[in-house]
This record gives sequence, structure tokens and C-alpha cells, in this order.
Amino acid sequence: MVPHHHDKRLDVLRTRLGVWGADVFISFDPADNAWLTGFFGSTSIVAVTAEEAWLFCDFRYLEQARASVTAAQVVEFSGAAEPFLARHLNAFCLKQAVCDPSVMTLACYNRLKEHYEGELTAQPDVCRALRTVKEEGEIARIEKASLLAEDALQAVLGEIRPGMEETELAGRLDYAFRQRGAQRNSFDTIVLFGEGSSLPHGKPGNRGLQPGDIILIDCGCVLDGYCSDLTRTFVYKQSPGAWFQEIYDCVYQAQAAALAAVRDGISARTVDETARTAIKNSGFGDYFGHGTGHGVGLEIHESPRLNPESEAILAAGMVVTVEPGIYLPGRGGVRIEDLLVVTPSGSRVLTVLPKELRIL
Amino acid sequence: MVPHHHDKRLDVLRTRLGVWGADVFISFDPADNAWLTGFFGSTSIVAVTAEEAWLFCDFRYLEQARASVTAAQVVEFSGAAEPFLARHLNAFCLKQAVCDPSVMTLACYNRLKEHYEGELTAQPDVCRALRTVKEEGEIARIEKASLLAEDALQAVLGEIRPGMEETELAGRLDYAFRQRGAQRNSFDTIVLFGEGSSLPHGKPGNRGLQPGDIILIDCGCVLDGYCSDLTRTFVYKQSPGAWFQEIYDCVYQAQAAALAAVRDGISARTVDETARTAIKNSGFGDYFGHGTGHGVGLEIHESPRLNPESEAILAAGMVVTVEPGIYLPGRGGVRIEDLLVVTPSGSRVLTVLPKELRIL
Repeated sequence: MVPHHHDKRLDVLRTRLGVWGADVFISFDPADNAWLTGFFGSTSIVAVTAEEAWLFCDFRYLEQARASVTAAQVVEFSGAAEPFLARHLNAFCLKQAVCDPSVMTLACYNRLKEHYEGELTAQPDVCRALRTVKEEGEIARIEKASLLAEDALQAVLGEIRPGMEETELAGRLDYAFRQRGAQRNSFDTIVLFGEGSSLPHGKPGNRGLQPGDIILIDCGCVLDGYCSDLTRTFVYKQSPGAWFQEIYDCVYQAQAAALAAVRDGISARTVDETARTAIKNSGFGDYFGHGTGHGVGLEIHESPRLNPESEAILAAGMVVTVEPGIYLPGRGGVRIEDLLVVTPSGSRVLTVLPKELRIL
Repeated sequence: MVPHHHDKRLDVLRTRLGVWGADVFISFDPADNAWLTGFFGSTSIVAVTAEEAWLFCDFRYLEQARASVTAAQVVEFSGAAEPFLARHLNAFCLKQAVCDPSVMTLACYNRLKEHYEGELTAQPDVCRALRTVKEEGEIARIEKASLLAEDALQAVLGEIRPGMEETELAGRLDYAFRQRGAQRNSFDTIVLFGEGSSLPHGKPGNRGLQPGDIILIDCGCVLDGYCSDLTRTFVYKQSPGAWFQEIYDCVYQAQAAALAAVRDGISARTVDETARTAIKNSGFGDYFGHGTGHGVGLEIHESPRLNPESEAILAAGMVVTVEPGIYLPGRGGVRIEDLLVVTPSGSRVLTVLPKELRIL
């Protein structure tokens, strides 16, 4: 098992505290708290100073936190979280606190300010920025989650039968994740047949599979705290027609072009533009309305975003998806998605399933 | 199918707008937006004025939102959400906006204020307060989700074999939910064997089931958007000992006493106190460290909270859990949880599985 490097992460955060002239970083965010301490419960508070790190959790999680967390002191709290934390900061004379406004509610911020005697400053994307570049141990976890999901998908494709409903296939896939050791899905599995595949984020329903149907599957699982993400589009028994082959080829080429554009130092917007231009040049520009990809890690959607508005620059060690699509309302859609690690000279694609159109 | 009453809900919200002297309520919260409009996507914005209601969603959800949402106008947006919404409010000369600070991040609030020409006021728990008392259609959905989960649990109990791991039983249960039509779990299923049951929110692991083990299962599913929640504690083949029977009886009686205390007009704190006192009087007060229950609806944890700090008064139509427990570190725990609707004179328990100790 590759160790989590919580002490190293806390050190990086402490360097930031020095830059900001702050005494303490505080967080109520489960993902940031997992990243900082290795605690994966739903509710916790983390406070990090130059010398100390505390993980505050309630009775429900106390025994397991004490058994698993070594990078921070585990302290029980009960009652309202914000007054408790404020009293703690006041008692330790911590006068300059920093929080991340993108993961703190306005109500939490206001209640803290009511009880805290020091100054609370919002610093955008504290841990979220640090979390974009993954450590080797994190990449290994994401790769394991990705391979698990692919193995499960492969197995379940073999169980497909005519008339099977979208919900049944989705349920079988989710069970296959669990049978292989996944903790849960990284998001609700998307299984869409036929013309329903034109909904980029459609929900599986009771439509039964028929020959000539498109089968679009977007899925991922969580293993050891880390997410995977994968989309493949197949056809059942026979192609729905030449129009489908055309959009499949177009997405296939756009995805390959965007993948080829990925490397350390390139802007996320350029990668998005690469896929978008390829699709636009084929005349389907109006039918690709979402971003080309996103970061993946402890959460399924992380920075950087690969879309036209993104200001991110890709860096070696980032783990991102590349997933262009074309969606023709009333007819059907295609999306092809790989998960990859940015490297100094390009990328290492973690997804191993072939992308050529497969007739099931 | 019982209809959702979105128009009625919007009317109630509009009455509040009048009381506050506000022009528009805005929300980025998926659960509030689902409650207001029936849209269940992960990302959306809702804006409600005296005359209009808008649901803004991105390309990924547009086709399905247009097909399913009737209470609000569906409008596509792309790019950054806050500047988009601010421009919209500015264009419609909506000068007094209200948001719920408990579900708006500080970053979102600050970005809105940057672009919005009117005044943005935080009103605590706008929809969250309205959502505590459920409509009949909502109660029917929760009851269906609860019965589904119980049926799945019953079926999976019959598959238990010696040596089965916690994760396998949890995976089978989750699959049984899906096979019966559930959309997903309402939270990660807790299956804990033997001494591991002393972790109130423990994670299923690789421990194999042995005769004499406690089996604690806390689970729930989502059906038609609504959650259920259920906990039962069993023993496998034989009791772990007299100590276990003692804590089981104590939790059983505390749960029954708390259930009997529930009625319209009673304080949530009193119900909590009823369970807590029963457990304390048996000498196990130090081993029941969590709240007695919580509201359930579109989200698994809603208002009201039934705990010592709660200021809520129970009202007819609220759906809450009653789930006291005793957890002896290193030995094991018991929790018994029912889901119930508060009624004018008491409660109607939705959970039907018996609570007497069952040897599997």
C-alpha cells in the first residue's frame, strides 16, 4: 500500500500560512479534510497551525478517527461546530485564520465571525489548488479505481441481453464495482440506450435494449478514497445508421486530437479548443455543448476544468478526463472519455479499453 | 403517481418574498431546486419572483429539463454561473434578492455581489424550513422508499452465510435496492459485524461473519427523489452474551419510549431527552453519543434534528428518524432506527420490520 503523505501536505499548507501571515487554516470540507489528514468521515473540522494540526470529529467517528489519523490530533466535539471551533481558536490565541470560500457556506462563515475574536480571511482554493497535482500514491489509487471500473464494465457487457432495461444494466455495473472491492460509485452511473443517449447527463430508465440501439455508458467508482471516470459508446447488434458512424468517427478523432494536445504547460482551454474545433470542422459544433474534461481525485469533479472559460494551465501530475461528445436530439449521442495523467512531454492514459466502435 | 406540488410551493415562497419585501429568491442548491421545480440534475440555478420562476441549467441537462419541468421556465446557461445570474437579475431590474446562507458558499455569494447591481440578503433556511413539513405526496414517496429498503434487507438477510464479509453483504444489499427500482443508496450502507458494530458510522470491511457476531445494518435508498433510513441490529446463530442482551433491551426500550413521545407540538429536544434518559438510567449514558434522530426527505439529513441542542418543535407532517444506540468500544454496539411521520396525536411509523432481537 502506497502511503498517504499527510505530513508533507501539512508542511506545504504551513508554508502558505507563512506567506499569508496567518496563524491557522480552518476547514469544514470533507474532501479537503480527507486530503489533509486521511479522515474520510462525512463531518469534521480541521485546523492547522505552524506547530499543530487538529481533527475535530463527533462521537460517531471518534473511535475510527483515533485508529486511523496520525497526522493530526483527534479531538471530539459535540454541539454546534462553529462556536466550538471559535472557542478553540480563541483559547489558543490564534488571531489570523484563513478559510477557503469555495467550500465554506455563508452561514458557517457568519457564525464563525460571530464567535471568533480574531480575523477570518477567505483565501480562494487553498487545498483545492494544492490537490490538482497528484502525488504518485494518489495516481496509483486513481489508476486502480480506473482499472477496477473497466474490468467491471467488461464483465457486465457480457451479460447484456435484448430487452434489458437501462436501470438493470446500471445496477449490475454498480454491483460489479462493489464485488471487485469498490467503496461506491463516484457518481450515478449513466446507461442510456438508443435516442436517449442524446442526453449528456440522462438518467437510466425503463427503456429496453433493442438491436440497432446505441449504448452509452458513463461510470466510475471509488477505491481507497479516489475516483475514476470512464465513458464508452457501443452499438447493439447493428449500427443505427451511417449518421451514427459519422458522429462516432468525429468524436473519436476529436478525442484523439485533444489527448494528443495534453502536456505539461499547455492551457486547459487549448485542449478544449482542440476537441471543439475538430467537432466544429465536421459540422457538429452545435451538438457539443459541455466542457472537454475535468480533474479527478478525491472528488469526481476537481480542478482543472477543461472548457472555454478555464484559466488553468495543465501541469505534470494532474489527472484529468478528456471526453468530447456529440448529441443529436431525438436521434442519439456519442461520448468517449479517458482518464489520464499529464506528464512533462504529454500524457499517460490510464484507461485501457479500446475506443474503436464495438458492436455488442 | 402522486403529483409534485411545485406551483403551490412557489406560491408559499412568493408569500415569503412579500413579507421580506424582496423581489427575487435565488438558489444554487440541488435539493432546494428539486423541491421548487422538480429538476433533479446536479447543477442548476433557480430564481423566483412574484410573477416568474426560472430554472437555469447547462447544455448537459437542457433536453431533460425542458421535458420534465413545468413550474418554471427552463433557460440554458453556459460559463460562470454567478455573473450569468447577476446579469439576468440586473436585466429584469430585480433589485432585492434573497438567498439561503446555509446552502450558498461564501465564494458564490461574493461573486454574485460583485456582478449584481441590487442588494443580496441572506435569509436563513428559506426552502429548508418549508421542506420540514412534508406534503402527502412526499410522505407517500418516502414510505415507498422505506418499504423498498425493508424488502431488500429482508431478502438479503436470507443470503447471509458464515464467513461472508461486511463489504459483500453491503454490496448485495445495495444491489437488492437497485433491483427493486431504487435510484441509489441514500448514503453508504453500514454493515458491521461483531465488535466493529461499536463504531456508530463505521465502514464495512473484510471481516468475515462468525457465529456469535452482532450484525448491525444501517441503510436506505432513494426512490423518486426521496430518501429512506433504517437500522436493525441482529445476532448471528447465537448471542454474544448477556451483556449484549442487556444493551439490546435498553436500546429497544429507549427507542420505544422516544417513539411514544413523538407528537405534533413537542420539542425535538424532549424526544431526544426521552431516549437519552432511558439509556442513562440503565447506566449506559456514556455510550450514546449521537443525536436521537433527524428529518428525512429529498436529503438523508434534514431539519429537524432531534438532539440536545435542537430548538425545533415537531409538527404534523414532519418525517423523522428515531435511532438511539449504545456502543461499547471493543465489544460491540446496538442501534435501532425507525422512520416515522409526526401526526397530530402521535406518529405513524413507516418502518414495518420487527424490532425484537432476531437470531439469524
